[in-house]
Amino acid sequence: MKTINIGLLGLGNIGTGSYKTLEMNRKVIEKNSGLDLQITRILERDVDRDRGIDVPMEKFTQNPDDIFKDPEISIVIELLGGIEPATSFMISAMENGKHVVTANKAAVAASFDKLMSTAEENGVQFKFEASVGGGIPILHPLTTVLRANDFSEIMGIVNGTTNYVLTQMTDHGFDYDSVLKTAQEKGFAEADPTADVEGIDVANKLSILMALSFDKYVPPTEIPTEGITKITPADIEAARVKGCKIKLVAYAKRDGDTIDYGVKPMELPLSHPLASVSDEFNAIFVVGNAVGELMFYGKGAGPLPTGSAVMGDVLEIAKSISK
Amino acid sequence: MKTINIGLLGLGNIGTGSYKTLEMNRKVIEKNSGLDLQITRILERDVDRDRGIDVPMEKFTQNPDDIFKDPEISIVIELLGGIEPATSFMISAMENGKHVVTANKAAVAASFDKLMSTAEENGVQFKFEASVGGGIPILHPLTTVLRANDFSEIMGIVNGTTNYVLTQMTDHGFDYDSVLKTAQEKGFAEADPTADVEGIDVANKLSILMALSFDKYVPPTEIPTEGITKITPADIEAARVKGCKIKLVAYAKRDGDTIDYGVKPMELPLSHPLASVSDEFNAIFVVGNAVGELMFYGKGAGPLPTGSAVMGDVLEIAKSISK
Repeated sequence: MKTINIGLLGLGNIGTGSYKTLEMNRKVIEKNSGLDLQITRILERDVDRDRGIDVPMEKFTQNPDDIFKDPEISIVIELLGGIEPATSFMISAMENGKHVVTANKAAVAASFDKLMSTAEENGVQFKFEASVGGGIPILHPLTTVLRANDFSEIMGIVNGTTNYVLTQMTDHGFDYDSVLKTAQEKGFAEADPTADVEGIDVANKLSILMALSFDKYVPPTEIPTEGITKITPADIEAARVKGCKIKLVAYAKRDGDTIDYGVKPMELPLSHPLASVSDEFNAIFVVGNAVGELMFYGKGAGPLPTGSAVMGDVLEIAKSISK
Repeated sequence: MKTINIGLLGLGNIGTGSYKTLEMNRKVIEKNSGLDLQITRILERDVDRDRGIDVPMEKFTQNPDDIFKDPEISIVIELLGGIEPATSFMISAMENGKHVVTANKAAVAASFDKLMSTAEENGVQFKFEASVGGGIPILHPLTTVLRANDFSEIMGIVNGTTNYVLTQMTDHGFDYDSVLKTAQEKGFAEADPTADVEGIDVANKLSILMALSFDKYVPPTEIPTEGITKITPADIEAARVKGCKIKLVAYAKRDGDTIDYGVKPMELPLSHPLASVSDEFNAIFVVGNAVGELMFYGKGAGPLPTGSAVMGDVLEIAKSISK
């Protein structure tokens, strides 16, 4: 069996979930691909934390060049989060001939063109399925089996934290502040929830979705973005009376040569496929001129769902380079 | 721009939808792939029918060898329907070095192992995304970006005709016979609806889903199958009282080494993601040990949605062979 060696940048929650996904499904992966995937080096300072996985100490390094310059490593997984040094590291990895997989929506959205062109110039693959919708397969279908479509519309609920908050407000009549506090206590919301509740995370994902489906890259900072911080129980009730639910939606709609796009709370009629997407679930609704309406639904975050998408990308690259 | 020549077997409804999908999205396909896809020969007796497309007369042939033996053709699309001669034609095409794409669930399910091994022996690709869920991307994600999962459960509403009939019975209290008659008048059901209403079509699709996700091929004739012909308005009402809807479901659930599977009408609680899938829509619900619950929703039939999946497969093959 052929071995594919992998370098991992970051062993936080998502890194640990990806490592676990590989270990728990090693047999299934080997059976289906005939490949032995090995994470051989990990860039991570915190070597002592108990992550519930057994990582041999010699895999850890604090020098990224131990990964980028290792001729045995063909794929680099970037799971550091944040824009820098993640972006520079991905570019260095590609310049050293490594294929790159990431879940980092902020970095991909901020430097989409640069990362894509660096991959092309260096003849390597760059994949980021986990960056939108977590475990939901959306970017891969959009760029493969759906590619014979001209897309006219995308709508997505792509942030679990805000969808959880809005669902709790809708189902129980709670106000924003108290739901957010509970969400933080349960670990569904960050201590600093700004990127989620202000819609910034959603704008990153919309930027990526538009680049891949409409072939139009708009930096997330140029996407009109409104979060959920001003939503009141009165707004929720007003929507309910109209037969609607308020959801934080990323939308892009093409009309001829113009695209209307943005991130904002919207009143969706209960009959809309996205209206029934509750709590931490995500869903992406797409309209193509041949396929019609499609919806992809699942867990948009979490270590294992995200790990599923990360390792799926890794496996696709591993299969293609071992042919 | 590189040209990929394609032979098409059958220019019925789905063949016409695939031809239309290619023609109407030619620019998008060229822009995204850098490839010029051309359907150069079509096996079809009925050359005179008005299909709303402009097909030059010289493309038609009644001799399959004009396609199989044409060295300029690299991909064959089989859209004849039915088991024979479709299966023999697909095998002949592969033995002549052609990659094959089909939407033919009956043929794929009946001879899954033989078709897969013929493809492997001849070093060609064999793709059949359109055979399950029409335009919904399901087989491709299951075998690519989700392949790092161990799947434990699949449930699908994968027949539009029966879902339309059950939806009409549920929403309006109509009885089975009158709804079926209306469906036939509207073209949502065949003149001979046996394969749909007896669950045979669903069993074909379940056979394919199980083979790809559980790596276990069960011939459709060995799948316990019950259709919807015995469902009465009283059954629908009894389900409603329990907070459920009756849906014709293909299911497969793994428990250790055993898999429980079949096709039957099931009472689904309204909270189940599949319960809200109405009319001619299809949806497939999947549980993977890393990704958790996923659902894929869209149009499970129709010339253009099916054409979307057929041309998506063709495009994937075309890209891989022109690298």
